[in-house]
Amino acid sequence: MIAETPTPPYYAVIFTSRRKEGDSGYVEMANKMLELAQKQKGFLGAESARGAVGITVSYWDKTESILKWKNNVEHQAAQKSGKEKWYKAFKVRVAKVERDCAFGC
Amino acid sequence: MIAETPTPPYYAVIFTSRRKEGDSGYVEMANKMLELAQKQKGFLGAESARGAVGITVSYWDKTESILKWKNNVEHQAAQKSGKEKWYKAFKVRVAKVERDCAFGC
Repeated sequence: MIAETPTPPYYAVIFTSRRKEGDSGYVEMANKMLELAQKQKGFLGAESARGAVGITVSYWDKTESILKWKNNVEHQAAQKSGKEKWYKAFKVRVAKVERDCAFGC
Repeated sequence: MIAETPTPPYYAVIFTSRRKEGDSGYVEMANKMLELAQKQKGFLGAESARGAVGITVSYWDKTESILKWKNNVEHQAAQKSGKEKWYKAFKVRVAKVERDCAFGC
């Protein structure tokens, strides 16, 4: 459940959202998009949790891979639905992971 | 609930964790640490959600501020308790946010 990412540097896309009420096909599409993301070149892993906000962090080898995923046709359709049906608000942040640690922190 | 961060660049600390069963003072300490973090120089905001994993992303102006927060005495005590009592596993990733967007993505 914690993504097994390689030694930095690599990239993180931090997607934070507030959902509208009701599902409206959201969960099905979210699962489908995760499956599809996993098949993309350069995908390194993802982590997701939801409370008052949802946070999904996906990890990628480089910015080119992130851009390709952003422009993926099926993903583009999901992004459109997201803006129209699912999200009250969201923010996407693209960040370069410079270091990481675990129990050795 | 979605952090109101300034124009990039700035830094994100992505903290992903799997909790042990039971509270053992976790929620109280987590709230206390968030309050304390908010008082630190260079703190820009935070977002948090929990499902199978917990994800907390805190945002900072620069790496020096992150290091100071890491070394804060009260925070150090909380980190120790985290390793001993609260977390089965966790990962900390420090990342430089290079760009962000919202509905204009």
